[in-house]
Amino acid sequence: MLDGVTKAHAAYIQPIKGSNRSLVAKNGPRKGKVGLVIGGGTGHEPCFLGYVGKGLADAVAVGNIFSSPPPTPILECTKAASGGEGVLFVYGNYAGDVMNFEMAAEMAQDENIEVRTVLTTDDIASSPIEDREGRRGVAGNIFVFKIAGAACDRGLSLAECEAVTRKANNRTFTMGVALEPCSLPQTRRHNFEIGQDDIEIGMGIHGERGVVRDRMMPADEITDRIMDRIFSEMNAVPGDRVAVLVNSFGATPLMELYILFRRVAQRLSAKDISIEANWIGHYCTSLDMVGASISILHLDNELSELLHHPCDTAFLRVN
Amino acid sequence: MLDGVTKAHAAYIQPIKGSNRSLVAKNGPRKGKVGLVIGGGTGHEPCFLGYVGKGLADAVAVGNIFSSPPPTPILECTKAASGGEGVLFVYGNYAGDVMNFEMAAEMAQDENIEVRTVLTTDDIASSPIEDREGRRGVAGNIFVFKIAGAACDRGLSLAECEAVTRKANNRTFTMGVALEPCSLPQTRRHNFEIGQDDIEIGMGIHGERGVVRDRMMPADEITDRIMDRIFSEMNAVPGDRVAVLVNSFGATPLMELYILFRRVAQRLSAKDISIEANWIGHYCTSLDMVGASISILHLDNELSELLHHPCDTAFLRVN
Repeated sequence: MLDGVTKAHAAYIQPIKGSNRSLVAKNGPRKGKVGLVIGGGTGHEPCFLGYVGKGLADAVAVGNIFSSPPPTPILECTKAASGGEGVLFVYGNYAGDVMNFEMAAEMAQDENIEVRTVLTTDDIASSPIEDREGRRGVAGNIFVFKIAGAACDRGLSLAECEAVTRKANNRTFTMGVALEPCSLPQTRRHNFEIGQDDIEIGMGIHGERGVVRDRMMPADEITDRIMDRIFSEMNAVPGDRVAVLVNSFGATPLMELYILFRRVAQRLSAKDISIEANWIGHYCTSLDMVGASISILHLDNELSELLHHPCDTAFLRVN
Repeated sequence: MLDGVTKAHAAYIQPIKGSNRSLVAKNGPRKGKVGLVIGGGTGHEPCFLGYVGKGLADAVAVGNIFSSPPPTPILECTKAASGGEGVLFVYGNYAGDVMNFEMAAEMAQDENIEVRTVLTTDDIASSPIEDREGRRGVAGNIFVFKIAGAACDRGLSLAECEAVTRKANNRTFTMGVALEPCSLPQTRRHNFEIGQDDIEIGMGIHGERGVVRDRMMPADEITDRIMDRIFSEMNAVPGDRVAVLVNSFGATPLMELYILFRRVAQRLSAKDISIEANWIGHYCTSLDMVGASISILHLDNELSELLHHPCDTAFLRVN
């Protein structure tokens, strides 16, 4: 797969020292700019390698399927992304990733590269609100990457980049629903089992258990369950603005995502919340899992400006 | 779904006379330009409505799932797309579409709008080469739309637009492979049955029979079967250039498309054919069918220039 990726997206990314486990943006890192390094396991394509390029991530570390990259490729990414102003790590809050990225950060410090980290924790189903920092990072991390990439590209300091990225993560809320498991190539088995007429609400992107398993229900009802939960956390008031991401876990087609989006838009409109941007499609998948997630980024003026800042990557372009 | 589409992509498309069965580009039609109308059944998203906008199609007529739009919305699209220089219809060669688009063309003539038609026939598995004109149009029609849209946007005459679009179609070759059927919402049934360990090579995008049903084989072998067939038709010589589309039928994830692309690139490279553009992802789906297709557009100077002409639509952007 990585051979195909590096061949297909040679205009955007290139292997560092010949390894396709650490990829640097062709037009990303530059002197005087904070570098942005993202990464994680594969199986989530176009996450994470599709979001590397000008105005977004400078480098991506690539792990095996559903498993963290080791410290060495992360360190290589850090060095390649460094422009002398420090490097920001943004990645999902999973034990393996945390361990390896932290080791890489220490190794980078030894080479005099200052590293700050923002863990994405947007999956509101993965832990109660009292344990906000224990939550997992899922599809909403695309919003967090986008904000971080824009902040870096605009020449903000490392501390400023970290602060606005942390704010973006705190204002991003995701919840998913799964209808069928994915098949893991390494085991040739499904990663979980679910009945033909069942769905699981709150499912993670590696098959982590959700909050409730229920009988199949209409798309609007699923959307309402998710939106009710998001509304209970986001503290929006009439007149607020959001960005919406309706993301396929892999095998759920675009048609169904539009059906979910229709209801999301109705629910937001009923609360007089306007949609400033919508992204609908395959943004952060879980191999061929059937299901989808809805992410909401609760904007303020600063986040709105950064969201619309131009970027040019293989899978996300803002003009 | 269409409510979701028109809400999501309001920046690109708007319903004509309040109907979301005929959608016009916000920034497409203009006086003095040949209009481009595309369309067909739904279930192929982002086909066809994702390719409407400046530099591509001016309007799209939208049918029910896997069935042609009736003549009236096609006529509305034609009128909306018309800038006084005639309108080009480009759509897949299926009996229902041909009947309805031809009726709409006659109705348009009555309103003094000249219409020319190019049927896409890129599915090389659907009929032998002697019956080139009897072949179906499948994912390769994206290439044909792109060329047509660029020709129209550049202000070519109706005859010139038709000629170059016809050339693009004649130089586009697609073949698909299916691993699992799709589920039709209207019948709640699969559109065909296939064994767990079987694949069907040459499958159409509505479940039409392919050329051979075989046992599962490695991705490289599948790709070789397809590329051998494409090479036997395209008459390429060393130094030629192509555009490549590796398209998911819906449920096949990006990871697997990159694996196919890797082999496509190897096969082309071995013949000293260079890849000038590659599009990899969900471009023309078949609901949630598992499978993929490979399309090759055999470029010449004129087609290359038009392929790179800018366009801005919900699902295809060229800068």
